[in-house]
Amino acid sequence: MTKKGCKIKKNNLLEEVEIVDLSSLVESLCSADKYSPTSMKRKLRRKPLPSREDIICIAEALRSVLFPGYFGSSDVSPENVCFQVGSTLDGIKHTLEEQIMRGLCFVNADDHDCSFECEGRARTIANAFLSKLPVVRQQLAIDVQAAYEGDPAATSLAETIFCYPGVLAITNYRIAHELHLLGVPIIPRMITEHAHSITGIDIHPGTTIGESIFIDHGTGVVIGETSIIGNNVRIYQGVTLGAKSFPLDENGNPIKGINRHPIVEDDVIIYSGATILGRVVIGKGSTIGGNVWLTHDVPPGSRITQIEV
Amino acid sequence: MTKKGCKIKKNNLLEEVEIVDLSSLVESLCSADKYSPTSMKRKLRRKPLPSREDIICIAEALRSVLFPGYFGSSDVSPENVCFQVGSTLDGIKHTLEEQIMRGLCFVNADDHDCSFECEGRARTIANAFLSKLPVVRQQLAIDVQAAYEGDPAATSLAETIFCYPGVLAITNYRIAHELHLLGVPIIPRMITEHAHSITGIDIHPGTTIGESIFIDHGTGVVIGETSIIGNNVRIYQGVTLGAKSFPLDENGNPIKGINRHPIVEDDVIIYSGATILGRVVIGKGSTIGGNVWLTHDVPPGSRITQIEV
Amino acid sequence: MTKKGCKIKKNNLLEEVEIVDLSSLVESLCSADKYSPTSMKRKLRRKPLPSREDIICIAEALRSVLFPGYFGSSDVSPENVCFQVGSTLDGIKHTLEEQIMRGLCFVNADDHDCSFECEGRARTIANAFLSKLPVVRQQLAIDVQAAYEGDPAATSLAETIFCYPGVLAITNYRIAHELHLLGVPIIPRMITEHAHSITGIDIHPGTTIGESIFIDHGTGVVIGETSIIGNNVRIYQGVTLGAKSFPLDENGNPIKGINRHPIVEDDVIIYSGATILGRVVIGKGSTIGGNVWLTHDVPPGSRITQIEV
Amino acid sequence: MTKKGCKIKKNNLLEEVEIVDLSSLVESLCSADKYSPTSMKRKLRRKPLPSREDIICIAEALRSVLFPGYFGSSDVSPENVCFQVGSTLDGIKHTLEEQIMRGLCFVNADDHDCSFECEGRARTIANAFLSKLPVVRQQLAIDVQAAYEGDPAATSLAETIFCYPGVLAITNYRIAHELHLLGVPIIPRMITEHAHSITGIDIHPGTTIGESIFIDHGTGVVIGETSIIGNNVRIYQGVTLGAKSFPLDENGNPIKGINRHPIVEDDVIIYSGATILGRVVIGKGSTIGGNVWLTHDVPPGSRITQIEV
Amino acid sequence: MTKKGCKIKKNNLLEEVEIVDLSSLVESLCSADKYSPTSMKRKLRRKPLPSREDIICIAEALRSVLFPGYFGSSDVSPENVCFQVGSTLDGIKHTLEEQIMRGLCFVNADDHDCSFECEGRARTIANAFLSKLPVVRQQLAIDVQAAYEGDPAATSLAETIFCYPGVLAITNYRIAHELHLLGVPIIPRMITEHAHSITGIDIHPGTTIGESIFIDHGTGVVIGETSIIGNNVRIYQGVTLGAKSFPLDENGNPIKGINRHPIVEDDVIIYSGATILGRVVIGKGSTIGGNVWLTHDVPPGSRITQIEV
Amino acid sequence: MTKKGCKIKKNNLLEEVEIVDLSSLVESLCSADKYSPTSMKRKLRRKPLPSREDIICIAEALRSVLFPGYFGSSDVSPENVCFQVGSTLDGIKHTLEEQIMRGLCFVNADDHDCSFECEGRARTIANAFLSKLPVVRQQLAIDVQAAYEGDPAATSLAETIFCYPGVLAITNYRIAHELHLLGVPIIPRMITEHAHSITGIDIHPGTTIGESIFIDHGTGVVIGETSIIGNNVRIYQGVTLGAKSFPLDENGNPIKGINRHPIVEDDVIIYSGATILGRVVIGKGSTIGGNVWLTHDVPPGSRITQIEV
Repeated sequence: MTKKGCKIKKNNLLEEVEIVDLSSLVESLCSADKYSPTSMKRKLRRKPLPSREDIICIAEALRSVLFPGYFGSSDVSPENVCFQVGSTLDGIKHTLEEQIMRGLCFVNADDHDCSFECEGRARTIANAFLSKLPVVRQQLAIDVQAAYEGDPAATSLAETIFCYPGVLAITNYRIAHELHLLGVPIIPRMITEHAHSITGIDIHPGTTIGESIFIDHGTGVVIGETSIIGNNVRIYQGVTLGAKSFPLDENGNPIKGINRHPIVEDDVIIYSGATILGRVVIGKGSTIGGNVWLTHDVPPGSRITQIEV
Repeated sequence: MTKKGCKIKKNNLLEEVEIVDLSSLVESLCSADKYSPTSMKRKLRRKPLPSREDIICIAEALRSVLFPGYFGSSDVSPENVCFQVGSTLDGIKHTLEEQIMRGLCFVNADDHDCSFECEGRARTIANAFLSKLPVVRQQLAIDVQAAYEGDPAATSLAETIFCYPGVLAITNYRIAHELHLLGVPIIPRMITEHAHSITGIDIHPGTTIGESIFIDHGTGVVIGETSIIGNNVRIYQGVTLGAKSFPLDENGNPIKGINRHPIVEDDVIIYSGATILGRVVIGKGSTIGGNVWLTHDVPPGSRITQIEV
Repeated sequence: MTKKGCKIKKNNLLEEVEIVDLSSLVESLCSADKYSPTSMKRKLRRKPLPSREDIICIAEALRSVLFPGYFGSSDVSPENVCFQVGSTLDGIKHTLEEQIMRGLCFVNADDHDCSFECEGRARTIANAFLSKLPVVRQQLAIDVQAAYEGDPAATSLAETIFCYPGVLAITNYRIAHELHLLGVPIIPRMITEHAHSITGIDIHPGTTIGESIFIDHGTGVVIGETSIIGNNVRIYQGVTLGAKSFPLDENGNPIKGINRHPIVEDDVIIYSGATILGRVVIGKGSTIGGNVWLTHDVPPGSRITQIEV
Repeated sequence: MTKKGCKIKKNNLLEEVEIVDLSSLVESLCSADKYSPTSMKRKLRRKPLPSREDIICIAEALRSVLFPGYFGSSDVSPENVCFQVGSTLDGIKHTLEEQIMRGLCFVNADDHDCSFECEGRARTIANAFLSKLPVVRQQLAIDVQAAYEGDPAATSLAETIFCYPGVLAITNYRIAHELHLLGVPIIPRMITEHAHSITGIDIHPGTTIGESIFIDHGTGVVIGETSIIGNNVRIYQGVTLGAKSFPLDENGNPIKGINRHPIVEDDVIIYSGATILGRVVIGKGSTIGGNVWLTHDVPPGSRITQIEV
Repeated sequence: MTKKGCKIKKNNLLEEVEIVDLSSLVESLCSADKYSPTSMKRKLRRKPLPSREDIICIAEALRSVLFPGYFGSSDVSPENVCFQVGSTLDGIKHTLEEQIMRGLCFVNADDHDCSFECEGRARTIANAFLSKLPVVRQQLAIDVQAAYEGDPAATSLAETIFCYPGVLAITNYRIAHELHLLGVPIIPRMITEHAHSITGIDIHPGTTIGESIFIDHGTGVVIGETSIIGNNVRIYQGVTLGAKSFPLDENGNPIKGINRHPIVEDDVIIYSGATILGRVVIGKGSTIGGNVWLTHDVPPGSRITQIEV
Repeated sequence: MTKKGCKIKKNNLLEEVEIVDLSSLVESLCSADKYSPTSMKRKLRRKPLPSREDIICIAEALRSVLFPGYFGSSDVSPENVCFQVGSTLDGIKHTLEEQIMRGLCFVNADDHDCSFECEGRARTIANAFLSKLPVVRQQLAIDVQAAYEGDPAATSLAETIFCYPGVLAITNYRIAHELHLLGVPIIPRMITEHAHSITGIDIHPGTTIGESIFIDHGTGVVIGETSIIGNNVRIYQGVTLGAKSFPLDENGNPIKGINRHPIVEDDVIIYSGATILGRVVIGKGSTIGGNVWLTHDVPPGSRITQIEV
């Protein structure tokens, strides 16, 4: 690196700043040492990454199809609704195919161009996903009802669709989960991370969630990859359904894919800040109080609260 | 739904994908069954919803009027400040009228066009709101002082105005609260949800908050609809002022509008992660420690901490 | 303020709305009383504030230089990588100089124009910062490895770079920390606040963090200004490393700059929702359980958990 | 106007510049003298003008409906074409209604709010206009054929649709002409002026043009309000079909609405730079040479050329 | 078409408006009659058209490479110029490949997917084009000199590069001409049409132009496909180098590709509004006066002017 | 230049394409030969060029100040007009100062940084310019009246302000002319070129134009630098007021600054396509017919027309 001595007074750290010239700095950053991205397994090649912007657009376009009149154009009438839904779905389909293909290539560590083999597969998956939309719409209609019934401050179904972060997070989760089931890599995670960024609610796309869930306020909620949640469950802000610890393989790396998160049965309420770790079962109808730390099974109908001070 | 059999190998779920054509998928999504948006009470009609973008613009424009020189144009001088404030307020006024009108229509469940009856009312409310701005500015000046005094890491008043998420959340709350008092539906909630999304601080617009509040860091803070907070209160991240449970009506729906959140008296400090639920009173000058779970009144001057481990 | 009586029926608060005209409202808001921004120490003068948009652009451009191919253009090949890195760095350099200069002026409370004296200093600092980038890149490569090893759900290094909020927050912190060490005011805080807004992870730029840190999920994490964190530390969502209380000076203002946050030694794991306050030492290799409230030192190798209910 | 003497050296005109302060300049510009906009008949009132942006969008959206696959989305298939056309038309309809209403208000010189009376009328006109689109499409298909046949450099019909300024200008004219016939003020002129700005071809919306017209290159073509053009006419750049002079009324103002532009019969070719003025008739099948100046009738089959030098 | 009678008063044309519903209008526009785009030879298929936006970006990016410091970033120094040029060229290369491929597909009338066969060819052409850039730069440097020397109002070379429409039009022409020589369809025409729209100067990409051309003001200039222009030629606004007439084939269609435009030898000046038609030769060193109509050869050194009035 | 042989079949020009690699192409384009921008007198240095975008914004903002309610916000009322004009002028002032400074630096060929010496001068000029705005507004009000009276197709003053390209071109000219008189380089030319691009009307900022000018249609109009135009002049499309020829200095460069364009006295009408060249005088009240070529004086009251064919 080219160095030209130079002394500056006011800050010790600046005392002996070496003026780096642009060329040598670039050279230093692009060199292929063990910390370079090359060695970190992302091949430098002409293969576009999944596009965050496009994936966010897909999620928002899907929202406008699942809740027509609430998102996207609000100018929806019986006369035009099918044209709007149709042209939106048509746009989603092509963008989604492209992004799924990029997702498939993203995890393909080999050097050769994956676009040909992935293209047909991406089309099949996109088609299979779209055929699930009527079911997703039905699930979300029930979730919206749960939000309205679960919050005394909610004034209408419309308000919960339009304003509640929990409904947004669940919508993104249900979309991402379908893609996850169809074997799409990385894209489902990007969709739930987008909701995480907006709402503070972090649901892994691999989670299994039943009907009629309501997450109120939601900031700080974490629901891990292998969690299983039943029907009619209500969860408040700051709740963690996490892993207690995880076994390592002979190289000290965590073993992937082991069931390590809680099973929450139907009709459970978990109050704010509760932390439930490990493959424990929270029995049907239980109530878990706020700030509780829980790493064992509880039978159906339990009332668990922190010792009050 | 048109079905054309097709077999794909690599993923079980893809094994028997039915190719749905666009037309039949649209038809399926637009049909008026019980899960359709129609049945979920949002009439499909030509009535624009409140615009998130415009409401965010209003909140940001108000911030530039309340803190001239910090937000909006930073090029403010005694010569031009009144022109900038004047033209910004003029723009706010018209956009706000329009959005208030949409908010009034949003909750109007009837079929007929509400725009005529709501238009005059929206104008009156917008005017009433603007006349409150000098008072709001005064409240915020005191809140800023509280932030500076409450954080040893704060280097100037300017830094707290410019960078502190707590100040942003309180600004949006104070704006939203005035609109809430004037009977505007949905819009106040959208304003505080915007702050919630940026800061992780979720304050219901219906909350009553006194002078000189400081919320530090703030992610995960939830302050419920009927909470009452006195003067000189300091709250840290992850604090919940929530409802313990709520009575249901004969249909099993929560009864709306009951006082169910805490009353926090003057000079109270609540540390991170504390959860206070129900219509309890935290007496003047009390300190509530981190991660505490509290569902009963505490007398003035209390020191409540979790049992240390 | 001009007042014209007017009566409206439907809302008590609207009963006696005074129609304020624009001119008198502007006059009221621009008057120089004790709550005006003038009295709050930001001189109204022609001095541009640091630009949030530009600072966010700098952070994102740096990310594309530190992880070429993952952020910014994804079309990176051995042939073009040096041109892309070079032109991006060139753009960063000039924008960064300008923003550092604005930051220096921001804290300069005097009336005279600071731009001349600050300009040269800003250039020196920007240069010194850029010369640190190869080191920062190396640190981040190790952090990425830690994320991959620390989460069984992570499928590749690429996924953690591309999707993990913890990696984003650490990247912004490491950038901000270098600027903080070089004496840049306000800008480092804006960079970490940007990550805070996206991820819910609030790390003060003054914090000292060793090699190989992993913050999982992260929403609600707060790491205070004078914290010191060793190597190989893992932190989950909702963890606070905060100050217990702070001494006031004779005017009742908090004394700035005192060491008041925890020291976390190497190989420590802190589970979700734990709150650790004050200048305490968490000994090497300790594990702190979820939701724990801790305000005292713990020796190396400790296992601290909340009493289970 | 406040004046503060100040002397500057380098430019005579700057020698005695009076420093005007902002307030006095504003006052001077806003005062209601005879040169103010107020006296120039545009009432200062809250009535939005037609929006150039929206009108340009309408013209472009119509182009995508009239030439699906060439403009707007290029991803058109038999499966999706009706959804795309349908949702585009739906959007056009509402924007067009709004702009027609603004156009009607624009020419309404009275003080009272015209929006109520104009709204229904605008809806009727928009509907009538849309019902003409199939006819307009047919006319344009013939014009495109004429362009392909009229230019040896044209390689396909597709190229003339996609690239020829003459086709763009005719498309905007045919749209504008239909609106003109329906009595819409100002909007038709804005649509043809938009084409004028892009192509240099200025066709008044009031002009009558038959089937199969081709304007090649086109820059500088002017076709006046009362011109009548037959079928199969070809016109080159710089041709004027203008008025020779026009009678004034008793106040010296030009009398509006008199037929004062040429009649061009079928199968005429007019070469570049020809100027034809007044209500003259260019007989069927004539050829008018370049740069000719013509102010009298010519019989069918004429060959008129400038005397060569 | 559904018809519902409705009578309106104020405009005859509105008297019997038939209310068309959206569905029937869509059906009418999408039906495959002889005026539909289908019959007009553009297959409705999933094949993206060349993108105007991207082609304009390419032209502008090339301008910044050919005149670094004048277009694109103005912040160019010896230190950074190669990084800027390199990263711009890299971006151009990929976008250009894509657009060339679309251009090749555009003229491919067959039904099968052309993307595979066109892709490699597009890459070869893009590469060949880029290798010509140093020559194009040299030509443009000489053209700029000609503009400076040809206009007494020009104050510097810099001004002619930065402001002169003639220089912009020649730049786009020289770029388009190279692509035309390499056999790229449609794209070259789009590049010169873009300049035509901005400057009113219409140069066909097929034209051959020598060194050191200057077109002053330029609005209305048309230079036809088979024109040949020598060195040191100066052309003013409104000049046409066109075809006099063109032979038709047995179907009445113009025969493509015949030499039908003028040859202008070295050192000729053509004043504003002159029209020169047909394959005539304007001899070396001639001056053609304004508004002249010329359809025959003129010997070297001629002075042709219109008869003055 | 690195060369790698490669043969391609389908196009002769592609037969022996040399694959150029990016690095060698960059090197070739950046080398400092006699065709490089360096040798073309624009120093490669860190000195921002005037910004086209900003100058267009200034022109549009000025239009909204000169015609409030027609451009910019259309929502202008007596209550808010002074705030809108004031804040717009305030913004113009600062942007204009910056752009004038860049213009002054643009022509400053010396190597040292001109920003300090130019900054104060730019401020003085901007101030002087703003003080001329009331006069400019008055001139434009009279021009608008001339447009309305000069075109039988004009339906209102409002239409001419809002839609007529001639009014736009004159507005930009009058603004540019004032800056030209104050000695601002390059910026005035950019302002009139912007109008040239939109309208096809090319008026040099140095031209002197009296009261009440009307340019109808206007495409192709060129009015040269030293033209002098009296009051009440009407000019149609395609008219040139140009230079006949110009003397060269000993180096063969045109001598700058000589009066070489026509003088057009009061009450003259010039019809479309007329070309008037040289320092000739068109006497008061004359009419010049279309397509005339004129290079001599004509006495007052002349009627000049082309010989008709």
